[in-house]
Amino acid sequence: MSFQIPTEQWAQVLEKTGGTVVHKKIPVPKPGPDEVLINIKYSGVCHTDLHAVKGDWPLATKIPLVGGHEGAGVVVARGELVNDIQIGDYAGIKWLNGSCLSCSFCRTANEPLCPKPDLSGYTVDGSFQQYAIGKAAHVARIPKECDLEAIAPILCAGLTVYKGLKESGARPGEFVAIVGAGGGLGSMALQYARAMGLHAIAIDGGAEKEKMCKELGATTYVDFTTSKNLVEDVKKATPEGYGPHAVLLLAVTEKPFQQASEYVRSHGTIVCVGLPANAFLKAPVFDTVTRMINIKGSYVGNRQDTAEAIDFFRRGLIKAPYKVVGLSKLQEVFDLMEAGKIAGRYVVDTSQ
Amino acid sequence: MSFQIPTEQWAQVLEKTGGTVVHKKIPVPKPGPDEVLINIKYSGVCHTDLHAVKGDWPLATKIPLVGGHEGAGVVVARGELVNDIQIGDYAGIKWLNGSCLSCSFCRTANEPLCPKPDLSGYTVDGSFQQYAIGKAAHVARIPKECDLEAIAPILCAGLTVYKGLKESGARPGEFVAIVGAGGGLGSMALQYARAMGLHAIAIDGGAEKEKMCKELGATTYVDFTTSKNLVEDVKKATPEGYGPHAVLLLAVTEKPFQQASEYVRSHGTIVCVGLPANAFLKAPVFDTVTRMINIKGSYVGNRQDTAEAIDFFRRGLIKAPYKVVGLSKLQEVFDLMEAGKIAGRYVVDTSQ
Amino acid sequence: MSFQIPTEQWAQVLEKTGGTVVHKKIPVPKPGPDEVLINIKYSGVCHTDLHAVKGDWPLATKIPLVGGHEGAGVVVARGELVNDIQIGDYAGIKWLNGSCLSCSFCRTANEPLCPKPDLSGYTVDGSFQQYAIGKAAHVARIPKECDLEAIAPILCAGLTVYKGLKESGARPGEFVAIVGAGGGLGSMALQYARAMGLHAIAIDGGAEKEKMCKELGATTYVDFTTSKNLVEDVKKATPEGYGPHAVLLLAVTEKPFQQASEYVRSHGTIVCVGLPANAFLKAPVFDTVTRMINIKGSYVGNRQDTAEAIDFFRRGLIKAPYKVVGLSKLQEVFDLMEAGKIAGRYVVDTSQ
Amino acid sequence: MSFQIPTEQWAQVLEKTGGTVVHKKIPVPKPGPDEVLINIKYSGVCHTDLHAVKGDWPLATKIPLVGGHEGAGVVVARGELVNDIQIGDYAGIKWLNGSCLSCSFCRTANEPLCPKPDLSGYTVDGSFQQYAIGKAAHVARIPKECDLEAIAPILCAGLTVYKGLKESGARPGEFVAIVGAGGGLGSMALQYARAMGLHAIAIDGGAEKEKMCKELGATTYVDFTTSKNLVEDVKKATPEGYGPHAVLLLAVTEKPFQQASEYVRSHGTIVCVGLPANAFLKAPVFDTVTRMINIKGSYVGNRQDTAEAIDFFRRGLIKAPYKVVGLSKLQEVFDLMEAGKIAGRYVVDTSQ
Repeated sequence: MSFQIPTEQWAQVLEKTGGTVVHKKIPVPKPGPDEVLINIKYSGVCHTDLHAVKGDWPLATKIPLVGGHEGAGVVVARGELVNDIQIGDYAGIKWLNGSCLSCSFCRTANEPLCPKPDLSGYTVDGSFQQYAIGKAAHVARIPKECDLEAIAPILCAGLTVYKGLKESGARPGEFVAIVGAGGGLGSMALQYARAMGLHAIAIDGGAEKEKMCKELGATTYVDFTTSKNLVEDVKKATPEGYGPHAVLLLAVTEKPFQQASEYVRSHGTIVCVGLPANAFLKAPVFDTVTRMINIKGSYVGNRQDTAEAIDFFRRGLIKAPYKVVGLSKLQEVFDLMEAGKIAGRYVVDTSQ
Repeated sequence: MSFQIPTEQWAQVLEKTGGTVVHKKIPVPKPGPDEVLINIKYSGVCHTDLHAVKGDWPLATKIPLVGGHEGAGVVVARGELVNDIQIGDYAGIKWLNGSCLSCSFCRTANEPLCPKPDLSGYTVDGSFQQYAIGKAAHVARIPKECDLEAIAPILCAGLTVYKGLKESGARPGEFVAIVGAGGGLGSMALQYARAMGLHAIAIDGGAEKEKMCKELGATTYVDFTTSKNLVEDVKKATPEGYGPHAVLLLAVTEKPFQQASEYVRSHGTIVCVGLPANAFLKAPVFDTVTRMINIKGSYVGNRQDTAEAIDFFRRGLIKAPYKVVGLSKLQEVFDLMEAGKIAGRYVVDTSQ
Repeated sequence: MSFQIPTEQWAQVLEKTGGTVVHKKIPVPKPGPDEVLINIKYSGVCHTDLHAVKGDWPLATKIPLVGGHEGAGVVVARGELVNDIQIGDYAGIKWLNGSCLSCSFCRTANEPLCPKPDLSGYTVDGSFQQYAIGKAAHVARIPKECDLEAIAPILCAGLTVYKGLKESGARPGEFVAIVGAGGGLGSMALQYARAMGLHAIAIDGGAEKEKMCKELGATTYVDFTTSKNLVEDVKKATPEGYGPHAVLLLAVTEKPFQQASEYVRSHGTIVCVGLPANAFLKAPVFDTVTRMINIKGSYVGNRQDTAEAIDFFRRGLIKAPYKVVGLSKLQEVFDLMEAGKIAGRYVVDTSQ
Repeated sequence: MSFQIPTEQWAQVLEKTGGTVVHKKIPVPKPGPDEVLINIKYSGVCHTDLHAVKGDWPLATKIPLVGGHEGAGVVVARGELVNDIQIGDYAGIKWLNGSCLSCSFCRTANEPLCPKPDLSGYTVDGSFQQYAIGKAAHVARIPKECDLEAIAPILCAGLTVYKGLKESGARPGEFVAIVGAGGGLGSMALQYARAMGLHAIAIDGGAEKEKMCKELGATTYVDFTTSKNLVEDVKKATPEGYGPHAVLLLAVTEKPFQQASEYVRSHGTIVCVGLPANAFLKAPVFDTVTRMINIKGSYVGNRQDTAEAIDFFRRGLIKAPYKVVGLSKLQEVFDLMEAGKIAGRYVVDTSQ
């Protein structure tokens, strides 16, 4: 199989940190010996993309920058060293575009912790363009039976919550509380939890979210807007009232964190996901020590986690709500995101 | 073998929270069907004993109270159900005097987390008396070749640091930073670390402590009183400057904790031991998440940890500095402790 | 709540190894300080019971013997030390009736490996009687919403396959081959595997078993009576043809074992369950080493495994086929078992 | 730094399976984009090299073949993609010369199980030449303070026993029996075991080996040539006579294997290392199951294991006995090996 590759393509380019993205034509890049070129069909839009635009994280982006790290498409070219991925295969650009593959983190399957990472749409160009480069060893392998549109949000959001659940150490039959279960990440976390044989206690606000959480398999819903005693309500939902074995904190802010350290089961694990600016974890020493609580940060998953997260999707177990718009409308999506007006995920279609 | 058991004995009794202990005669207790009676020869004095006297922890003590939970002695009587420990065996009273042995914590070898624990010298009478009761399944088994005087501090202090090192997950050949390495707990931690094949980075203040830490096997000593940049100095002592795989925080206060979260290796573990009143852990979310740091509380070890901690001692690998005084002088020991004038451990001899 | 306890009861008694069981009246036993007396309502009949009767295992039974170790009933009396189980609670007699609770196996939650175990219906009297004794710390806690008739086979057969699946180390989303999937143990294993998020490859013979296995959730069925190349067929059913991550061997005989060592994934685990007399495992060294295969024996689960296996049942996820007859018919059940004419499980009703 | 690289070099070449190696001049190869060229100074000679010459393993070699996979030397050239290893660095050629780095084995740090491995001195040319190629991500990083002559045997023999000990799961303070402790692999295993805080029980034959084993730190020596009951003698050397937690079988033949399955502690692990032709493991099912024994094959370590094995050597904890001869004498070494006349390791010096 071979593809005709144009020399120019449409992309959304950020030319100045804090500016707006510009939809324009740029050259199509060429893959190096260990790289592939992917014709991106769809790309999810993630909060991180907005952080990259605004430059409010303690890590600088490349400029000019093509953002995006949830890109799903088709491999159209590959370097001379690449032989385990074929032209015509489906593949995905994810947050970790490449890593050294030989440091002590990479060689223990912790490549997201590599001290010299290439981050898609952040330190290297990402998926808000029609043709994107990825290191062959890192691009996500996407089975042919998957829908490229629907799988885009799995490449970051899905992977992140799946990894968080894995890191929690919760085993089938155990309880995990999901804080922010009614949001975009939360709705995926509920589905992954169910597929992993876990009991999910959904924590969020409002009756509409309750309905959705229960449909997605939550055993119990605790409404923080109406609960008289959230800590007790969560504990009551677990065997003997000992609290859930794990907590997945999808939005790490102080109050939910402190509550989690109160209701989590002794010897249980609180997994923090999500990166609000300047936030701190804070936990009472006495309780943490005498109850042997474990507090963990979880970042994106590694390549194996990616394959697993995709496999659950392939089997039809994970359905993330999303809305598709043309790539040309990306700035409008950012504006909605900034205004806090997005529920679920936006996916951009690079053909428009 | 059989022993003549008196009906009365000397003990140190606390009659009122916040009061002083009184050296007086009290009746010798009788073991229940699943208990043993131990003729305590020596008992270590721990900071927890002072907390029990002062009543400044969020957990009430029994009153009147015989304190003490590092008691080493000889089994002199046992209940009808006890058959795996013999009259004449050496045994020890430790912090966990008994637990239900059937809750979900007990049945997974996490008996220190049992919701209905008997705590020696806190919720039940402890080892500051000549004859103490312990649940047969819980009393520490002490091999006959061990010195009862020297082993007393192992029963709590030694066990606690050994457990902390186990919980850190550090494997032989990896690096662990020990904060407070020059103190009583620290000197034992250094020896356990060495026996476990770990590289220890000792953190403490002053040249005298440096000398001791190095003698006890520390690879590196970082002096917080003179270091220009403690975080960098700790990192420099590790391969490629990635920081130690684990940190054992023997005194959990805010500054050392925050530093630990900066110098610990990505994916590394910070183990908190020690229970200062009203203290809090505080860590920046961004770093904790993107570096996947693990923060754990570690309490006392379980029965298996106890057997292991004792076995390292038996092999001559752990030597804790201690001073022996008569049980009658216990209040004086508390006074010194309150004044912060104790280095190493005091052990009381119940025969005096 | 209190119960009137008769002095005599009906039981099935084996008076001579190799003889037949006799339905007769015997005295009701009295619980010791750490025991409970359970009014057995139903008891499953297991192959082990037949081994006890025949005496063909390398471990002698008590004589005279009341067999049975899948007994479900109601607690009617308890010893003075028992306070975490109430009169009137549902409870179960399982294979491990008691253990020392303080050896190095017991204190690491491996109590089935205790060198001094009490084995129900083998070294102590079991559940083929109306009133049976169990150590309080060991009897299975059965929630009130469970059906005592249906839960009986979970207490040994269910627990055994659940433990085998846990020991396999297979994680949600991974593949496990179940050899003998169409039998009594197999049908439970398929249901536990599904509840644990595992993909099961069922291996057995015949179209009827295929139908059942697929209904119980098997991803693939491999028929050893018709497969041209069983090893290839199993591998083909897994991603990239690498073979299943784990194999659960419910009948350990030489041929299936050797096949398993060929089709299991490199670094995968073969778990052996089941105790045919005089059988041997045999594996080629070259393959075992270069593919880093792991071969494990799995025995009955511990108390925590029991609680978990029961919880999956309570949630309605495990339905074991069984047939109920009166306790008085036990010898007839043994005769059918001996003749190999039993599919599924027999449960005896002690009231008849 | 830069090196002058000749176009020709001395090498030992096998031109026909089953033939003898020929010392001759061949061209110096050029590294590909992801490869380095190493000027080999010393190379250990391993039994595997003899298997390659004889062709008696179930895996064909390349022909003509330059054997060798314990080569230590200096990086003299590198491909365009290589940036984490410098010209002038010390590096080693080990058994796994390269792997795909993206299959499910590679991405979980199990690269020795990659289905498309490059094996040094077997499927690609190895270290019996002055200039050898290695994939940059796979060559062993050797610190500058290491002696290149002495480290050569660590690159395969040392790594293999270290990995076997890791796979055993034995923790500091636990017991491991080492079968064949007095041989070349065994003497390294004893030293690694000591460095890892393990108690080693050495099993071998004769008084000379006893002396050596005890000097290298063995707690106990069991002489199979004089022991009346080897199984009992091994068990007696462990706490309470329960047997060692792990067994490292350096020569897997039937009798030692069957003994190991008798004396290993319940729930313990038998690790098989070594690849005799056509050998089989054989274990009784009853014991394996009821004692929950774990039997594991262990192959060479991965890249992280390599780094760790080297680090123990760097710290001076591992001293392997070896003899140096010129590369030109390789066939003589093979002849001695074939005759079973080698104790310790031969290392060839490529300059002679």
